[in-house]
Amino acid sequence: MRVVSEKIVKKSIHAPNFLNEPIEYNKSFSRGIRVNFGKITILFVSGTASINERGKICFLGDFLAQAKCTFYNIKALLQSEGASWHDVVQTRCYLKDMRYYDKFNEVRNLFYKKQRLKPFPASVCIEANLCRPELLVEIETIAIIKNPIKLKHSKKLK
Amino acid sequence: MRVVSEKIVKKSIHAPNFLNEPIEYNKSFSRGIRVNFGKITILFVSGTASINERGKICFLGDFLAQAKCTFYNIKALLQSEGASWHDVVQTRCYLKDMRYYDKFNEVRNLFYKKQRLKPFPASVCIEANLCRPELLVEIETIAIIKNPIKLKHSKKLK
Amino acid sequence: MRVVSEKIVKKSIHAPNFLNEPIEYNKSFSRGIRVNFGKITILFVSGTASINERGKICFLGDFLAQAKCTFYNIKALLQSEGASWHDVVQTRCYLKDMRYYDKFNEVRNLFYKKQRLKPFPASVCIEANLCRPELLVEIETIAIIKNPIKLKHSKKLK
Repeated sequence: MRVVSEKIVKKSIHAPNFLNEPIEYNKSFSRGIRVNFGKITILFVSGTASINERGKICFLGDFLAQAKCTFYNIKALLQSEGASWHDVVQTRCYLKDMRYYDKFNEVRNLFYKKQRLKPFPASVCIEANLCRPELLVEIETIAIIKNPIKLKHSKKLK
Repeated sequence: MRVVSEKIVKKSIHAPNFLNEPIEYNKSFSRGIRVNFGKITILFVSGTASINERGKICFLGDFLAQAKCTFYNIKALLQSEGASWHDVVQTRCYLKDMRYYDKFNEVRNLFYKKQRLKPFPASVCIEANLCRPELLVEIETIAIIKNPIKLKHSKKLK
Repeated sequence: MRVVSEKIVKKSIHAPNFLNEPIEYNKSFSRGIRVNFGKITILFVSGTASINERGKICFLGDFLAQAKCTFYNIKALLQSEGASWHDVVQTRCYLKDMRYYDKFNEVRNLFYKKQRLKPFPASVCIEANLCRPELLVEIETIAIIKNPIKLKHSKKLK
């Protein structure tokens, strides 16, 4: 009988060329969390919106541009961990106004087509007021990727 | 020292006799995503509502019937992957109007009782406008099931 | 060739000294679900708010106190499974009114500082009406911890 305890390694995700750190404006969350366990890595990407590397909102009042920027910001966060949109299993999409839903799908269709995504992630989309009134869209994502581990083989030979 | 990399197998979930495919109305998401890794399968079921196999909303204006239909649509999606409501670990419930909360619980209690569910899933319920104004309820679910894998034993005997 | 099927063990999470059971007011969900598989345990903690062990709302009308109570209620649920806020990978925060966002961050910053949390969890925060009109904040969390398993080694020696 022996106890096996596998290490869980957690770290925060950053894409400083694309998005600033929430702590810069005194918000205690990470842009995302990477969790490794066994051979698997799960990326929990925080709600991400159309902001830039200085934390400023991009494309005020322009839904299409904000949506596009959001998809690319998430791409940057995924890439920082060696992942891509192909690894995304679930998105949660929040629209400031559901009347943007058709426009949202227009952007999403184009973006996914460009990424040659197949299958599409699971998804939900609801209307919600976001943390800053100028934000028109925000998306949360979960991605799952392989985590290559190095195993040391200490073969005891008699 | 060797590198172990485990395959992650992702596929979309379908229940064509119950719900149409989102792409039919130009929406780029899957009804759900199945992810296999190691001995585990996670089912991420998308936000699911009271629609039918042609993508039409069922039970316009009837909250109780929409809620019931939603639970059965999710059941169909789970069953398509060999899972059931017993495997659901988490639900996220969105109600068009929180005044339906008591009715929602009425339907949920009956449905779970009929499924002999125990323990009940973790859950959250918030009010939200959904992607079509006639939808009164939408539910997202995560289920976890076993993934039997075949391991090939190549015993090298001297 | 052999089939490996790993057991998935699911149970509900309770912290009866802090929060009552939802079924007591006829709501079919668990305060949280623990799922064990392999060497990993995932805790899905339900949407949690400022209520007490008798299911009464605490701190009516006082956002700061409700937020603090919510963080401590979640802590109690995590602790009941041997986990802590250090194991939380994701939070979903629902505010009754987004004008509370600054106050929410004030409480969250203080709480996380006290817990010496690092890195901070992934997060999203949206405005939403909650299941009871007096609730001003609700938070959902996912935590991942190690699951020590005992492996029996039956070495057949010739």
